[in-house]
Amino acid sequence: MKYCSNCGQLVRLAIPPNDDRPRHICDACGSIHYQNPKLVTGCIPVWEGKILLCKRAIEPRLGYWTLPAGFMELGETLAQAAERETWEEAQAKVNMGKLYSVFSLSHISQVHVFFLAEMRDAHYAPGPESMDVDLFILENIPWKEMSFPTVSQSLRYFVDDLQRGKFPLHMQEIHERSW
Amino acid sequence: MKYCSNCGQLVRLAIPPNDDRPRHICDACGSIHYQNPKLVTGCIPVWEGKILLCKRAIEPRLGYWTLPAGFMELGETLAQAAERETWEEAQAKVNMGKLYSVFSLSHISQVHVFFLAEMRDAHYAPGPESMDVDLFILENIPWKEMSFPTVSQSLRYFVDDLQRGKFPLHMQEIHERSW
Repeated sequence: MKYCSNCGQLVRLAIPPNDDRPRHICDACGSIHYQNPKLVTGCIPVWEGKILLCKRAIEPRLGYWTLPAGFMELGETLAQAAERETWEEAQAKVNMGKLYSVFSLSHISQVHVFFLAEMRDAHYAPGPESMDVDLFILENIPWKEMSFPTVSQSLRYFVDDLQRGKFPLHMQEIHERSW
Repeated sequence: MKYCSNCGQLVRLAIPPNDDRPRHICDACGSIHYQNPKLVTGCIPVWEGKILLCKRAIEPRLGYWTLPAGFMELGETLAQAAERETWEEAQAKVNMGKLYSVFSLSHISQVHVFFLAEMRDAHYAPGPESMDVDLFILENIPWKEMSFPTVSQSLRYFVDDLQRGKFPLHMQEIHERSW
């Protein structure tokens, strides 16, 4: 941020009164511009024991497989955001289940959350951001071609939990890029 | 947002190519400015069966009681943010426990999360944003003087769960301001 989004003048980075960290401050109009972590929401869509994955048609990680997920938009609930992303990326309708995995990625100031989800029918197709969408039996999950650590970790939790028959909430902190 | 934070020129609200909702677009430098929901994190600090609450010294809801909570900052994990807020508002050190309540507040584009937490010792004191901090036995929780719905709801879940001896994750959607 170089300019004030409220008045267009140059901002400076300084610690405001009664604060403890630098913010972008506008001396012209008095605005203080706070920046906050972003939420990414997605789900693990399941149909008859198979998992729906999308092959990314966009960067980053073009050509790698992902669970449907993306940045939460204004005016949405977490579940609505995950449902929208599943439609946009995989053209699939899901019944959103329980919150399943929550990741703090402090190095990129993001929080990723994934829900369990059941597909309402067998329909799916690549949305604009996907080059392929397919249902995978567990044995065929392309572990070496996964897009993001939070996606592969959520899938690993799910595969393990399927064997146990219990699906507790998983919390994890990921501190470095690792793919 | 009226001006581009990257180049200082006027932005306009329009739907970018391959998008489906209006964004603030800068025709001068090509920036697209996305806006995203904000995360508020806090905890339920417990010491010997009592709950630590803070009386707010700032607006909104000045003079009402709250759990320590606030906007997550860049570079933090969810638990770190809750720990920092507990120190800032109540000068208490806590061991962060499990993620306990998650609220989607779509009407204000916020997600609030609260952890269970154990105070490490009996020390607490008002931070700059609090006019009072105190430990409450369950019977004395000031229900009619609570600051925010997500705070009172988290406390209600906790009081109920204490009787059951089980503390599952609570997910809730709150669609309107209600206090």
